[in-house]
Amino acid sequence: MKTYLNEIKENENVDSLFLAKEKSSGITKTGNAYLKLKLVDRTREMEGRVWTFVDIFSESFEKDDFVHVKGKAVSFQDHLQLNITHIERVKEEEILLSDFFPMTEKDVEGMFQNLVEMSQQIKDQHLSHLLRLFWEDKPFVERFKMAPASTRLHHTCLGGLLEHTLSLTQLVLKNAGHYSGLNLDLLTTASILHDLGKVDELTYHRSFDYSDEGRLLGHIILGIERLESKIHQVPNFPKDLSTQLKHLLLSHHGQYSWGSPKRPMTLEAVMLHYLDDMDAKMNGIQQFLKTQVSEGSRWSPYHPVFEQFFYVPAFGVEMELLNNIDETESEEE
Amino acid sequence: MKTYLNEIKENENVDSLFLAKEKSSGITKTGNAYLKLKLVDRTREMEGRVWTFVDIFSESFEKDDFVHVKGKAVSFQDHLQLNITHIERVKEEEILLSDFFPMTEKDVEGMFQNLVEMSQQIKDQHLSHLLRLFWEDKPFVERFKMAPASTRLHHTCLGGLLEHTLSLTQLVLKNAGHYSGLNLDLLTTASILHDLGKVDELTYHRSFDYSDEGRLLGHIILGIERLESKIHQVPNFPKDLSTQLKHLLLSHHGQYSWGSPKRPMTLEAVMLHYLDDMDAKMNGIQQFLKTQVSEGSRWSPYHPVFEQFFYVPAFGVEMELLNNIDETESEEE
Amino acid sequence: MKTYLNEIKENENVDSLFLAKEKSSGITKTGNAYLKLKLVDRTREMEGRVWTFVDIFSESFEKDDFVHVKGKAVSFQDHLQLNITHIERVKEEEILLSDFFPMTEKDVEGMFQNLVEMSQQIKDQHLSHLLRLFWEDKPFVERFKMAPASTRLHHTCLGGLLEHTLSLTQLVLKNAGHYSGLNLDLLTTASILHDLGKVDELTYHRSFDYSDEGRLLGHIILGIERLESKIHQVPNFPKDLSTQLKHLLLSHHGQYSWGSPKRPMTLEAVMLHYLDDMDAKMNGIQQFLKTQVSEGSRWSPYHPVFEQFFYVPAFGVEMELLNNIDETESEEE
Amino acid sequence: MKTYLNEIKENENVDSLFLAKEKSSGITKTGNAYLKLKLVDRTREMEGRVWTFVDIFSESFEKDDFVHVKGKAVSFQDHLQLNITHIERVKEEEILLSDFFPMTEKDVEGMFQNLVEMSQQIKDQHLSHLLRLFWEDKPFVERFKMAPASTRLHHTCLGGLLEHTLSLTQLVLKNAGHYSGLNLDLLTTASILHDLGKVDELTYHRSFDYSDEGRLLGHIILGIERLESKIHQVPNFPKDLSTQLKHLLLSHHGQYSWGSPKRPMTLEAVMLHYLDDMDAKMNGIQQFLKTQVSEGSRWSPYHPVFEQFFYVPAFGVEMELLNNIDETESEEE
Amino acid sequence: MKTYLNEIKENENVDSLFLAKEKSSGITKTGNAYLKLKLVDRTREMEGRVWTFVDIFSESFEKDDFVHVKGKAVSFQDHLQLNITHIERVKEEEILLSDFFPMTEKDVEGMFQNLVEMSQQIKDQHLSHLLRLFWEDKPFVERFKMAPASTRLHHTCLGGLLEHTLSLTQLVLKNAGHYSGLNLDLLTTASILHDLGKVDELTYHRSFDYSDEGRLLGHIILGIERLESKIHQVPNFPKDLSTQLKHLLLSHHGQYSWGSPKRPMTLEAVMLHYLDDMDAKMNGIQQFLKTQVSEGSRWSPYHPVFEQFFYVPAFGVEMELLNNIDETESEEE
Amino acid sequence: MKTYLNEIKENENVDSLFLAKEKSSGITKTGNAYLKLKLVDRTREMEGRVWTFVDIFSESFEKDDFVHVKGKAVSFQDHLQLNITHIERVKEEEILLSDFFPMTEKDVEGMFQNLVEMSQQIKDQHLSHLLRLFWEDKPFVERFKMAPASTRLHHTCLGGLLEHTLSLTQLVLKNAGHYSGLNLDLLTTASILHDLGKVDELTYHRSFDYSDEGRLLGHIILGIERLESKIHQVPNFPKDLSTQLKHLLLSHHGQYSWGSPKRPMTLEAVMLHYLDDMDAKMNGIQQFLKTQVSEGSRWSPYHPVFEQFFYVPAFGVEMELLNNIDETESEEE
Repeated sequence: MKTYLNEIKENENVDSLFLAKEKSSGITKTGNAYLKLKLVDRTREMEGRVWTFVDIFSESFEKDDFVHVKGKAVSFQDHLQLNITHIERVKEEEILLSDFFPMTEKDVEGMFQNLVEMSQQIKDQHLSHLLRLFWEDKPFVERFKMAPASTRLHHTCLGGLLEHTLSLTQLVLKNAGHYSGLNLDLLTTASILHDLGKVDELTYHRSFDYSDEGRLLGHIILGIERLESKIHQVPNFPKDLSTQLKHLLLSHHGQYSWGSPKRPMTLEAVMLHYLDDMDAKMNGIQQFLKTQVSEGSRWSPYHPVFEQFFYVPAFGVEMELLNNIDETESEEE
Repeated sequence: MKTYLNEIKENENVDSLFLAKEKSSGITKTGNAYLKLKLVDRTREMEGRVWTFVDIFSESFEKDDFVHVKGKAVSFQDHLQLNITHIERVKEEEILLSDFFPMTEKDVEGMFQNLVEMSQQIKDQHLSHLLRLFWEDKPFVERFKMAPASTRLHHTCLGGLLEHTLSLTQLVLKNAGHYSGLNLDLLTTASILHDLGKVDELTYHRSFDYSDEGRLLGHIILGIERLESKIHQVPNFPKDLSTQLKHLLLSHHGQYSWGSPKRPMTLEAVMLHYLDDMDAKMNGIQQFLKTQVSEGSRWSPYHPVFEQFFYVPAFGVEMELLNNIDETESEEE
Repeated sequence: MKTYLNEIKENENVDSLFLAKEKSSGITKTGNAYLKLKLVDRTREMEGRVWTFVDIFSESFEKDDFVHVKGKAVSFQDHLQLNITHIERVKEEEILLSDFFPMTEKDVEGMFQNLVEMSQQIKDQHLSHLLRLFWEDKPFVERFKMAPASTRLHHTCLGGLLEHTLSLTQLVLKNAGHYSGLNLDLLTTASILHDLGKVDELTYHRSFDYSDEGRLLGHIILGIERLESKIHQVPNFPKDLSTQLKHLLLSHHGQYSWGSPKRPMTLEAVMLHYLDDMDAKMNGIQQFLKTQVSEGSRWSPYHPVFEQFFYVPAFGVEMELLNNIDETESEEE
Repeated sequence: MKTYLNEIKENENVDSLFLAKEKSSGITKTGNAYLKLKLVDRTREMEGRVWTFVDIFSESFEKDDFVHVKGKAVSFQDHLQLNITHIERVKEEEILLSDFFPMTEKDVEGMFQNLVEMSQQIKDQHLSHLLRLFWEDKPFVERFKMAPASTRLHHTCLGGLLEHTLSLTQLVLKNAGHYSGLNLDLLTTASILHDLGKVDELTYHRSFDYSDEGRLLGHIILGIERLESKIHQVPNFPKDLSTQLKHLLLSHHGQYSWGSPKRPMTLEAVMLHYLDDMDAKMNGIQQFLKTQVSEGSRWSPYHPVFEQFFYVPAFGVEMELLNNIDETESEEE
Repeated sequence: MKTYLNEIKENENVDSLFLAKEKSSGITKTGNAYLKLKLVDRTREMEGRVWTFVDIFSESFEKDDFVHVKGKAVSFQDHLQLNITHIERVKEEEILLSDFFPMTEKDVEGMFQNLVEMSQQIKDQHLSHLLRLFWEDKPFVERFKMAPASTRLHHTCLGGLLEHTLSLTQLVLKNAGHYSGLNLDLLTTASILHDLGKVDELTYHRSFDYSDEGRLLGHIILGIERLESKIHQVPNFPKDLSTQLKHLLLSHHGQYSWGSPKRPMTLEAVMLHYLDDMDAKMNGIQQFLKTQVSEGSRWSPYHPVFEQFFYVPAFGVEMELLNNIDETESEEE
Repeated sequence: MKTYLNEIKENENVDSLFLAKEKSSGITKTGNAYLKLKLVDRTREMEGRVWTFVDIFSESFEKDDFVHVKGKAVSFQDHLQLNITHIERVKEEEILLSDFFPMTEKDVEGMFQNLVEMSQQIKDQHLSHLLRLFWEDKPFVERFKMAPASTRLHHTCLGGLLEHTLSLTQLVLKNAGHYSGLNLDLLTTASILHDLGKVDELTYHRSFDYSDEGRLLGHIILGIERLESKIHQVPNFPKDLSTQLKHLLLSHHGQYSWGSPKRPMTLEAVMLHYLDDMDAKMNGIQQFLKTQVSEGSRWSPYHPVFEQFFYVPAFGVEMELLNNIDETESEEE
């Protein structure tokens, strides 16, 4: 069973799996070689040192390998450090990604099932067929369920893309009926597929980062390519419907300056853009507040991308108040 | 009964009420004075001429008066023109504003009742009390029910402010439950009051325009002033709650460049901003498409404020298709 | 043979082909119906009237049809107008597009041949194969040779896309050798294909305008789609090469605010962007000066898109001077 | 008497009052608990350590308390540090704010008197009455005399708001007569009240920072609220005058992007904006040069908000020159 | 004596000087040639026609000539028109520029004298010498006294440059003493010379427009060139003083986006920029209000460059009030 | 012979010339004074210490002097440090600038010769004369050959200005013939002189930095001044030609926001701007990739000024491929 780095205490023996994020060699004052490592899992980073059998262990793994480590935690200059007595590479199949990256707190399979059911409500046969093709594409589905939605800003966790996609699609269904004249099937399909290209844009096997083609082409284009190839497999997919669906993907960032090659030109595209932006921002702030605001503080630190502070209302008090009223009310009923 | 200008045909006799938007005098080639008028109602404008008893009629009304007009429609240089035989001022109480301005298509009293009921769901006693004070302020309610939401962009009609306010509050209720940790009472109150100051900012007695204080102070500040004076009447209104509520009003435009003195700093303020912006944009586009797109055309003209074209999908066709499928589907079930 | 509208003089008989850009009916003062037309060819517009056999002629063509017209030019209120005695629709195959739109002054076939030869210099077999596939795609080649490069700004003529593409590719070849380390085959291919999607984005059968998918998706995306489908036909096209080539297309506008979904991230992409922008701007200014500057004037009117005036040096004089010096110099040598 | 931190030398005994800005506990290598403090006054910060009676002293004060400290200054790793033998909380009434924050170099009472006299020159009875109400509001006057004008940019000192307000009002009086048609009473009043809300926006009891309502509402809105409540106390304050005065407050930042909810729309508002901006900038640069430019240097460091360097002319030399000339000149006269 | 166009009434005989702004020929229905002219002076434009001796008169002047015209004013299609019986060119020396262009309302010689006296107060001998050289440059002084300060925005009249320069220098003297440490001689000199280059940038012999070098180089550079050549004539002009003076000219527009090649980097440059901008804006608004606001209106039309409306307070009323109080006050004294 | 800092190894004796970039004194724990220095040459920086004869050596040189140093390299806290036994100032004439700053890799004299030859091709006698005057100005030529083109962004090396100027002029000659109607002599001259003012704007005797007048006036203005003074020496230099040439210098940055006082208004100015910008960007990226990208990496670090990452294609592989094809091709031929 995994021992997490943030659970390890001074002088404990450790026997667990980690990611070897950095690896270099040094020379002690007495002239002996040793290995300097940085070990990480999803909880924190820790320095590691190999003092013995350095040659052998040095060949047993590479930087960025997952490794099986045995050793002892010691304190050095006020920080914990692992003195390693055994280290060797383990295959990626042997580890759980969620031990090494933050994972959505929601149930992945449940969320996915939810999304599939939503796509089964779509009555337009071409759009319905299209989504079926995506769900039958096993490698795609695997990546779609595991990818994060962003490297930094929002839903930054394994399963984050799925979580955001489901959230947006639910929002779309809540809001679309509010306005007359919207093509609900189109909106639902676009919502499900809007960030599709992120399965190719982002990598999450060693860290949350961009793939080469992610940086060079971006998820909007990568999504259009995946969409195009699936549309070709749907017989007689109407040209105009395909154009509108692609337009929804292309324009969902809303502004040229946010990398959107087109601004929303249909009612559906306008709504998709607003709700997508709102969901990303709301989750991004919640994630930021959760990780960056110390208890009792009413202000977040400065958010470097949103370029502002956020206020955290004295919510406990008010919630309590509300709950009391709630109970009273429910008693009344 | 009102005869609308767009119903009048050549050579018809006319006897109805109009607004005298322009008034000047001219001299005929034979040296006689005459009056040149521009008459308007909510359907169109029409030139008018008074050829007889010019002195008397000229003193019977001023520019921007509502007038009772009798006369005959004649054709002059391809345009209809009214030759007026009688004209005199009528009091504003004798006319129906909705004969002269576009009017919301929804039921004003019904919408207002709806909003009142929503405010009765609020459990926080201070916010609940606050809203009650607004609803009991008869002069405010009269203006709130009749004001437009904008002079040009969205909900540009009598009752438009109420329509937009109700729409936004419904959206807020639909979306707020989607995220945890939101103060729903605060959000609902802020949504109901967010454009409050427009009852003072806009005028709609001769045309949709800005009042002096509207242009000099703006609806955000005017709303804060009305809010402040009502808050003072609620006993023990908590300072922090008042600050948050005002922050929601101040920041609902979202960006400094859109005249927002503050950017949204709480989750509630972020959501209110997105949904308000979305509702204004959606309605603004629909209003633009309805009035500016000729039948059969798939593209709107260039929208001078949004700075783009909008696409009008061949919706009839698809709807029909969808309906057919609907039927088939329901037969199957 | 085509009689151009700008050649027609008062009282001449006319028998030629035009485009019926507008068509409506009117009633004369004596109560008879007549047809009002606007006829155009590439030289100008002219009003037309059908006074006889109105019912029959009215059914013989629609607005936006090319028409065969017989009639006589008369002067009405200081303008020439055609009194039409015969009018009927002609098929698009019977007209020459270049009679109705401005046409590149260069030789289309020669330019195209030039471009094919350049692509034959490419040594990378995948890129070479790719271009061959485009040149073998007859419908594509037809549109590629005829499309304009822009509806307004530069190379606004039939054949303009080809002219700009050839010009840019020549520039690329001139400049690429100046810097070390550039992938010349990649640059040449990207240059040839950079505006590929304009064959789908722009229409030029009734006027220079955008197609529906042109406005909704844009030429960058439309180009990527055509490129993607051709790349799939080249066996073993390297993934990295494909990504770089697409990146060059995606980033050639250089800035997000100019609708570029990516900014140039490779040396090749940076160069392509600069030279494309320079060629468009140089041609755009020349086209503007040629059509908008009256002889002898040293200043252009204000250019609404570039937002500035342009200066036209007293070039004749200086050229003469230069020529004289030239001769003197060559005599000296 | 206060000993300032920047006067303390190695091995001196210290007995004075400081602010305990940080407070945490540590464990020595020998396993004993100790307290780590950061002590500050207006001159600098210094680390402090409590090695004895740790439990007792730890309970005798909290972080952000003002404290009475006895101890000795020792050198540790090239820095001075206080080894504390006694520490306990003192009440805020016992300290002088100006020992802990930078203080305006001008005479606070004198400046205030100056401002009161200026307001007595105002002839408009409503404006005159309004200002009188402010000056009679003792709690307001106390804060108005002590508040800084900005946390960082200009007049960043106790009394800074008063200093800037006086300076601006003097500038207004100097410049207003230069243009005809200005309402001088209105301008003077607006100048005196323009930054009114800063008494609520900024805090200066532990550091120069923003209050919660300062960040959420901003000094412009907070000022409008204070102004509104005072205007209500002036009998028959003319509506138009009130609107204009508020407009001057609302628009004095000049640009939406600088958080101004309105741009200046009257001549008075335009002038107030320019002079306010100039005074803030001039003082801000002088303050920056005074604290950041080392003697003899002709360039300031890069100013992170103004985003530029400032040049410091070799003024001494020129001044000397000027003085010499002065003397010469006066001798001549 | 000049008869102004706006004084001419129907059927009056006219004998005066005008500018022939447009000139073309036409053919009457009876087949005779005639001349169509547009005549202007500083008050308005009027159409003119020459029906007789057309060949002779046509050769007697060119477009853009000043002309001596005799004829009679008749009414044609509701407009006055001059039927001309005699027309011939007059030399520019024979006309008064102020008959044809708006002229400053202030006394040109008085203003100039004022400026010269100010420059005589300067104690720095190099700066004093420099200004003397400018005042001794007769052709420069002639143009400096007559040039406008702007073609559209502010001080758009003959003498406007002088008026603005004097106004700014007065403002500088009023404000400079308010801050310590400013080089007053430098500031005064820079203020006097800051728009120097406008004598070359603008033309005002046929209309207020830009010269070729004005558009291509701009008044900042043209001013630097004139300044440089004069500085060379002052013996031992200090390099550092020259650099600072030029910096003040270069940076007085304040922002790159307003065409300033440098942003202000010294206290003097910052102050000069603010006061110059304020004076231009104040005068620009006053000029706009004076010409564009109809009596009784409280709002200006939309200003296309400043991009806003301006409010015109009900000043008369308040002024009256103020005056009454004034009187009362003075009685009291 | 110079020993470079990056060649020095632990325990080696050193005897060479360096720049003393920092100099301060310290006290050892035993109470003795010592000197702390930072020594630099073009390869790196190194700490130095003088432990003996501190008083004497301290007076033998100043900060920013070039110094002759003898001593021994020792390791201190993992870094090399020089223990200095002898140090004294050397005159600037005794050192080679290229030992202390990065130097262009190209041959300075060869490049300069190249540029002179290009200017000899110019047929316009005034421009030709003008350039000759520059080449005959020895002090100018010395600085022109040695100055860098930028302190950070591109061609940041001794000789960089010359290298960039030559590169741009070659580009201009390659591209100018591509468009008809360009004044090639003007373009070539402007290209050679476009960054002229950098010889005065930048300093490179102790570090690459700005001179005082460089920061206050900028190279565009400084260049115009040098140009103006040379133009005066060419008899009868045509005014219009001078204006155009200056316009090319003034507008070559292209945008106001990049400090260009004018935007390009002629075809020549447009081309010069694009090619200058392209050459600077291409060189800037190459310089950045060369110094900042570790071998094998496909991505550069984030470029703080260009605000992006750059991609480094796996060029080796492709080059090999290309080379193979090359050989095959050449065998075929």
